[in-house]
Amino acid sequence: MEKKIVLIPGDGIGPEIVREAKAVLAHVAEKFGHTFSFTEIDMGGCSIDRYGEPLTDENLQKAKESDAVLLGAVGGNAETSPWYKLAPSLRPEAGLLKIRKELGLFANLRPAFLYPELAAACPLKPEQLANGFDLVIVRELTGGLYFGERHTEKVNSVETAVDTLVYTEPEIRRIAIKAFEAATKRRKSLISVDKANVLDTSRLWRRVMEEVGKDYPDVKLSHMLVDNAAMQLVYNPGQFDVIVTENTFGDILSDEASMVTGSIGMLPSASLNETKLGLYEPSHGSAPDIAGQDKANPLATILSAAMLLRYSFDMETEARAVESAVAAVLRDGYRTPDIYTEGTKKVGTREMGALVRERI
Amino acid sequence: MEKKIVLIPGDGIGPEIVREAKAVLAHVAEKFGHTFSFTEIDMGGCSIDRYGEPLTDENLQKAKESDAVLLGAVGGNAETSPWYKLAPSLRPEAGLLKIRKELGLFANLRPAFLYPELAAACPLKPEQLANGFDLVIVRELTGGLYFGERHTEKVNSVETAVDTLVYTEPEIRRIAIKAFEAATKRRKSLISVDKANVLDTSRLWRRVMEEVGKDYPDVKLSHMLVDNAAMQLVYNPGQFDVIVTENTFGDILSDEASMVTGSIGMLPSASLNETKLGLYEPSHGSAPDIAGQDKANPLATILSAAMLLRYSFDMETEARAVESAVAAVLRDGYRTPDIYTEGTKKVGTREMGALVRERI
Ligand SMILES: CC(C)[C@H](C(=O)O)[C@@H](O)C(=O)O
Ligand SMILES: CC(C)[C@H](C(=O)O)[C@@H](O)C(=O)O
Repeated sequence: MEKKIVLIPGDGIGPEIVREAKAVLAHVAEKFGHTFSFTEIDMGGCSIDRYGEPLTDENLQKAKESDAVLLGAVGGNAETSPWYKLAPSLRPEAGLLKIRKELGLFANLRPAFLYPELAAACPLKPEQLANGFDLVIVRELTGGLYFGERHTEKVNSVETAVDTLVYTEPEIRRIAIKAFEAATKRRKSLISVDKANVLDTSRLWRRVMEEVGKDYPDVKLSHMLVDNAAMQLVYNPGQFDVIVTENTFGDILSDEASMVTGSIGMLPSASLNETKLGLYEPSHGSAPDIAGQDKANPLATILSAAMLLRYSFDMETEARAVESAVAAVLRDGYRTPDIYTEGTKKVGTREMGALVRERI
Repeated sequence: MEKKIVLIPGDGIGPEIVREAKAVLAHVAEKFGHTFSFTEIDMGGCSIDRYGEPLTDENLQKAKESDAVLLGAVGGNAETSPWYKLAPSLRPEAGLLKIRKELGLFANLRPAFLYPELAAACPLKPEQLANGFDLVIVRELTGGLYFGERHTEKVNSVETAVDTLVYTEPEIRRIAIKAFEAATKRRKSLISVDKANVLDTSRLWRRVMEEVGKDYPDVKLSHMLVDNAAMQLVYNPGQFDVIVTENTFGDILSDEASMVTGSIGMLPSASLNETKLGLYEPSHGSAPDIAGQDKANPLATILSAAMLLRYSFDMETEARAVESAVAAVLRDGYRTPDIYTEGTKKVGTREMGALVRERI
């Protein structure tokens, strides 16, 4: 197959990890007889430095015309970087929000699971993991507080800030369908997280989840309040299979779940729309402190490339080949510094990438 | 001193745990020569059953006229209880929201810390606790999404739900002051949690925190994004002293922090306004499954009574006497079932209350 991939190296460790994931994709293409073309575009701080804005319309257009987008990470140190002196709409993250909205990437899939070899890195005691730990958070990504009307103004000479949390029935329905589909392919359990004891949006959310659930009689749907979900992820993450939730709650819970694995450098993500075009990126950030030192863990980005193969190109065999290669590298004892423990072999970003490619 | 205390036993285990905390308060009064009068009012499910609403204006008035309010817990099993078939404004939680709003209880203090004797219950590995674990979350309690305008309606025949997140400068300022005051009395570190890379309310929040901070040069103020805070609470809770955050984030993070201690049955809370009147309640819920079985842990409620003595009555000595008695009971090896481990002495709700009183 011929496919156009747009690469967004971004900031910090972004360029190094995307370089390794690109090499993996090129290797897959060769091995399986595909033709992948790669176009690099700027987004985030590097785009601000070059164009004065975090994502130009021209670069956005290239992403729109591609078959899939692979992103490293955007942003820098908010305390020290001049990017964070700019107006909010000009900061690095605004590029991310713009591409999500413009590509209509409403469904963010964030797996959180433990590789047996890395279980020791989990901050939880082994007792808490008696039920295992392999979940996916399906986060709504283009609605809610992130994209509602907001303003700050004086009301009767009192400075007042307002953000608006809006959800419509069709917005909830389409994310519900993605979540039920994901659950159907997994352990058939879906927990919808909301704050229905307070929010109108959550009550509509719950109602639509129930309605869509009627089309998926094999999936067990239940509801959990977000404060309780934040507790349960620490207490017993093994109770979750698929979690579906709105944008803000999904932001918080997916980061919490990543940290609970202890190996955030291993976790990929996919942001999907109604077409095959998707954006794939590691769950971790741009780690400016270790940028350019060949220390970054490229595996989350390589696993994001595997998700790209699966969801945007329907290349299940190729996706599994990449995932198996990553598992094999871990089994063979190779570790970047972030996941290194005594008795394993410490390697850098480049070598880790090469080790994965050798095993495909 | 003469003081009027309103007790709200509430639902589930509420009556049993409030009974023990009341006995502790009566014991303190006798021991230290005070006169405490007690008035019980209904709130939550029991009030719905009796009056058809979760908190009557008459009962609210009694709370308003008291010097302090001690609450057990409200609510039942949302899946099975008929209370949850009612309109949202008639459900048990609506009573809680009403009393918070009507008493102006804008500052919710939720400590989360480890008793040395209970450290084994913490779901985290000992390595994650190298920096200790003793923090207070100061949650804004009468603003934000909880009390903003909300509605659900058809817009161009599309069902649309809206919740509004509003904060004004004075609302942020008064909670900032409470948080800086708390930090001044502790380790002088304040972390303000927001989502300033997305929300206007968070940007105003950050600005006001900075401004108020100028009056507290001894306190080190820093800012953390809420997704990162959810991670850091799992990874390294010892880095936090005082956390201040808005209503929704505070709900999620304070429950997460409680669970990270592993002993949610031990954690008190205080909800304060600009006067001395406050509402005190355990951080845990109404646990309907174990109600009436003499199994509930009354210590969080007893420790809430200690906070009541401290914040509403300025009785620091008395508050410490209660806290020391609780610590002594733990040291002596007594445990309710929720915190029981091999080699300790299992006791029921009543006996635990008596053991605390003996040690005051
Ligand atoms: C950078 C920020 C706007 C973004 C978000 O909150 O969505 C990030 O935290 C994420 O989760 O991808
Ligand atoms: C019952 C509910 C409305 C309440 C809240 O979210 O404030 C509870 O979770 C709490 O934290 O006290």
